[in-house]
Amino acid sequence: MTSLDDARPATTEDRTAVSSAATGYPTPAWRKAYRQGSRPDLRVPYREVHLTNGATVPLYDTSGPYTDPDHQPDVRRGLPALRDSWIRQRGDIEEYDGREARPEDDGIKHTSPRGGDLRNLDAVFPGRPRRPLRARDGVAVTQLGYAKRGIITPEMEFVALREGLEPEFVRDEVARGRAVIPVNVNHPEVEPAIIGTNFLVKINANIGNSAVTSSIEEEVEKMTWATRWGADTVMDLSTGRNIHTTREWILRNSPVPIGTVPLYQALEKVDGRAEELSWEVYRDTVIEQCEQGVDYMTVHAGVLLRYVPLTARRKTGIVSRGGSIMAAWCLAHHQENFLYTNFEELCDILRAYDVTFSLGDGLRPGSTADANDEAQFAELQTLGELGRIARAKDVQVMIEGPGHVAMNKIKENMDLQKEICDEAPFYTLGPLTTDVAPGYDHITSGIGAAMIAWWGTAMLCYVTPKEHLGLPNRDDVKTGVITYKIAAHAADLAKGHPGARDWDDALSDARFEFRWEDQFNLALDPETARAFHDETLPAEPAKTAHFCSMCGPKFCSMKISQKIRDEHDGGTSRPKAGGGSSAVASEFDAEALAGMAEKSAEFAAQGNRVYLPLAD
Amino acid sequence: MTSLDDARPATTEDRTAVSSAATGYPTPAWRKAYRQGSRPDLRVPYREVHLTNGATVPLYDTSGPYTDPDHQPDVRRGLPALRDSWIRQRGDIEEYDGREARPEDDGIKHTSPRGGDLRNLDAVFPGRPRRPLRARDGVAVTQLGYAKRGIITPEMEFVALREGLEPEFVRDEVARGRAVIPVNVNHPEVEPAIIGTNFLVKINANIGNSAVTSSIEEEVEKMTWATRWGADTVMDLSTGRNIHTTREWILRNSPVPIGTVPLYQALEKVDGRAEELSWEVYRDTVIEQCEQGVDYMTVHAGVLLRYVPLTARRKTGIVSRGGSIMAAWCLAHHQENFLYTNFEELCDILRAYDVTFSLGDGLRPGSTADANDEAQFAELQTLGELGRIARAKDVQVMIEGPGHVAMNKIKENMDLQKEICDEAPFYTLGPLTTDVAPGYDHITSGIGAAMIAWWGTAMLCYVTPKEHLGLPNRDDVKTGVITYKIAAHAADLAKGHPGARDWDDALSDARFEFRWEDQFNLALDPETARAFHDETLPAEPAKTAHFCSMCGPKFCSMKISQKIRDEHDGGTSRPKAGGGSSAVASEFDAEALAGMAEKSAEFAAQGNRVYLPLAD
Repeated sequence: MTSLDDARPATTEDRTAVSSAATGYPTPAWRKAYRQGSRPDLRVPYREVHLTNGATVPLYDTSGPYTDPDHQPDVRRGLPALRDSWIRQRGDIEEYDGREARPEDDGIKHTSPRGGDLRNLDAVFPGRPRRPLRARDGVAVTQLGYAKRGIITPEMEFVALREGLEPEFVRDEVARGRAVIPVNVNHPEVEPAIIGTNFLVKINANIGNSAVTSSIEEEVEKMTWATRWGADTVMDLSTGRNIHTTREWILRNSPVPIGTVPLYQALEKVDGRAEELSWEVYRDTVIEQCEQGVDYMTVHAGVLLRYVPLTARRKTGIVSRGGSIMAAWCLAHHQENFLYTNFEELCDILRAYDVTFSLGDGLRPGSTADANDEAQFAELQTLGELGRIARAKDVQVMIEGPGHVAMNKIKENMDLQKEICDEAPFYTLGPLTTDVAPGYDHITSGIGAAMIAWWGTAMLCYVTPKEHLGLPNRDDVKTGVITYKIAAHAADLAKGHPGARDWDDALSDARFEFRWEDQFNLALDPETARAFHDETLPAEPAKTAHFCSMCGPKFCSMKISQKIRDEHDGGTSRPKAGGGSSAVASEFDAEALAGMAEKSAEFAAQGNRVYLPLAD
Repeated sequence: MTSLDDARPATTEDRTAVSSAATGYPTPAWRKAYRQGSRPDLRVPYREVHLTNGATVPLYDTSGPYTDPDHQPDVRRGLPALRDSWIRQRGDIEEYDGREARPEDDGIKHTSPRGGDLRNLDAVFPGRPRRPLRARDGVAVTQLGYAKRGIITPEMEFVALREGLEPEFVRDEVARGRAVIPVNVNHPEVEPAIIGTNFLVKINANIGNSAVTSSIEEEVEKMTWATRWGADTVMDLSTGRNIHTTREWILRNSPVPIGTVPLYQALEKVDGRAEELSWEVYRDTVIEQCEQGVDYMTVHAGVLLRYVPLTARRKTGIVSRGGSIMAAWCLAHHQENFLYTNFEELCDILRAYDVTFSLGDGLRPGSTADANDEAQFAELQTLGELGRIARAKDVQVMIEGPGHVAMNKIKENMDLQKEICDEAPFYTLGPLTTDVAPGYDHITSGIGAAMIAWWGTAMLCYVTPKEHLGLPNRDDVKTGVITYKIAAHAADLAKGHPGARDWDDALSDARFEFRWEDQFNLALDPETARAFHDETLPAEPAKTAHFCSMCGPKFCSMKISQKIRDEHDGGTSRPKAGGGSSAVASEFDAEALAGMAEKSAEFAAQGNRVYLPLAD
């Protein structure tokens, strides 16, 4: 494994470029595999879990080339440009010189007390130089544009193969605006993924540089670490110094769509003074990011001047950073939100690069007390209106949602969003179902996330245990991702998504048949499952024992079940536990227990117990 | 703090009797307080959270006398007999010699390979000797019996004061069988708690001795540790040696109701051979436990011979240990479950001590694939029938529920249970909403637990991260309890339980006003919240900073909100952040920022960031 796996924070000095990406799977039982598409350069990656009984289980995989043994990762070169020929062969884009990078893009012009990490100011991405691409002659080079024109793009075929659905179904969902495929023409490295209520629920992980703890390479490391555990997209929420350069490194090395909040960088360019923001500064920043390859952008165009007073009597006012910035600007100038008044021009820019809108909920509740209030739903109405404008211009659109919402108010959010926003993909943060557990908000929000995803939310933004308290470290990022994979999969299962239940069934079979290794390898986190098991039991004998110590050698509930099956079902309905069947057949024959004496003795030495029994 | 707070496992040698109980609160801001009832000896404990602004927030408290500075804990003496006079003054019970403890009660007669911890075989509880109590002349000394006769007992007044409800409402809910107060006449130490859908959702924590890791004192420690974090009841699921003695120590030191599964001890008495069980051995075990003071017992009387074949085609058969034991007995003898055929006699025994039934779901699903199937719901019908028989005999009844259930099938469980079981309190294990995350089943189940509690479940049995894998340690027990407190409170909030939202509001106010200390102290787990915060920020300056680093000193979303309030609401709707108001009023006045320069500098040195911003 890489230097990622030692606890001390990595530094530029103590590691090679290669090691700054999280490479390899957590278990050798996971292996990279590909489904071949209709053209040689269309190969869809997935994860194959190899079981001890010879079977394999295919799982959706977001880890990119880093888990392919044939790939030599080098974050200084970046990933192969998977989509380059798909994009160019369409013949509707042009290369151009593009906007020249400026010192202020990395926050260098001003002397902000907000500092920044000087180590990396000269760390310009060393990979191949590239000129940006954009649409020729105002053609809509967006997946929505192609879908409306009846074209099934390689990107659509890719996600169809990835989810096991028909390409025509994918095209239709995109054309209806009910799903999006965020793929900027300037991010050819991305492995396309689809976000929509009729597809697997996706999750996003936030990263972002901080002068306190991280270097540019550490941001790349965070990105690959998050995708290794299952993040479908990553948002780069960097502030302070090196925003432009950090983003360049992340984009060139990211196999998943990258999202940003351009307003954060724009605010840096005016030295953190919201009132000094302008459409011109913002537009310049958006173009800068479009040319780099950002796949989707959060835009707080729904925070209207007249909505701001609606937050006055709230318990926690405005908690969205973007929402507060725009509210501050509106109050300082007593003018309408410039993102709203210039929205059509913004659409034209995003359309030229196929950047997807993520319309931000700047007035989302910051406490369960403020959930579902007038301010929140007034903004939602505006987001619906803006979504229609964007789609009319062939720009893909997602809608962001709360926040802090008690369970009884969650469904109303989903139902209203579907109605007001024409079923555009909903992208929610949690929601947190109670405010009383700082330190555990991955759990308070994981509950709400699972529920709202079951009811139709397309993508869930993760929350880590450090939410409200501090900066997440590697373990927090992993815990956040795993928790949200649980919420997303629980929702896929509840929605009856095709194939979702096969994974649960494979693990349940392994459990019933005491295939411990397979239970670990089918787990979302094999490392933790194996470690917890080995904490109280020696590795080998226990992992192959055909009884678990909850019942002990003389008595085993699973063997009783096998016996029942043998008696009433001829044992034909499913294979018996390999090797365990003789013991099974003679459940009550004391003699037959002799054969298990050795295991029994080993086991007795351990106290005969694996589990603390369930309430029972 | 006690030796509990160091990580290494405590041993009998290295600690005093006192230190083997988890004493004291995790923060000095939590203080024990009491509400005085109608009689001098009726004082209801609660937790008072003291805030920096002088306010206090009262919270439900399960930690017992161990957190009262006036109490000198000594696990060798046990807790004061709080209810002794309440019980005796009713004049309907008698002392008697009771059943004599036998070696086999502690599993000493046989030479099971299942071993046991020999250290403690002579550790008979040294506290005051006591003769057991039971009902005189077949009087119903149960809370249900009193409630039906229109009597409001001190126990009912106690729980009414504890939950802020009317005693008559409590009596009525108990009389209808919609709530239970598990209080054995032989467990006078217990602080009464009520379990019912119209009361605060309760949680149970499982403990149980294991020859591998724990001594009797460590079990007492686990119990006090679990209640310190919020466990409302504790189930002692001990097996192997010292079952009787361990239970005695736990009961004499427990401020919460104790539940057991008598079948486990009965199985030990027949050396783990299910087929050798008999009604006589079981009845003897039940009487032994009734006399010790067990408050509720799980009884698997619903596993009928004819239901067993229904599990044959299941993916994971029978996973309930008690269910498997009874299925094995039924198959071995081809006779009906002796718990079912002798149920009325069992009711008469429990009635004499006011022991509450927890009718076990022996056929609950062990995988989402098996959820809501014929076997599970057939047993539920029988549990409903048995519940009516028990209540007719004035015995209190809870019904146990699953298990592993995908989100879309959870509500059906709740609705059917209400209908079939006449709204008797539902007591569920999770349910786990997916099978694919061993190592994180506190989360897969916390999601289902929150949902089913919102829909009406009265008590949730916790699941720890070690579920399916190993023995929970202290940290696992704490994580399980905190996760389930989150689920329970999220449900109280969603149900609109009186007063539930005050806690969330108090924390949200503290968050809005940057009262960091109050945010920590109002958290379910102040230690973790404070530790996470201090990981990335120096303690004092940051805790008093009136901006958080997500926005930095020049820009603060909370201050914007204050300004909005000042402009549009005269700032009258709520107090301003103490000390922050001057900065607030002149948000856009560069001069006024000078006053914050010092904090700003300290903060800049930290990189100006506390949070990794939310997706936004």
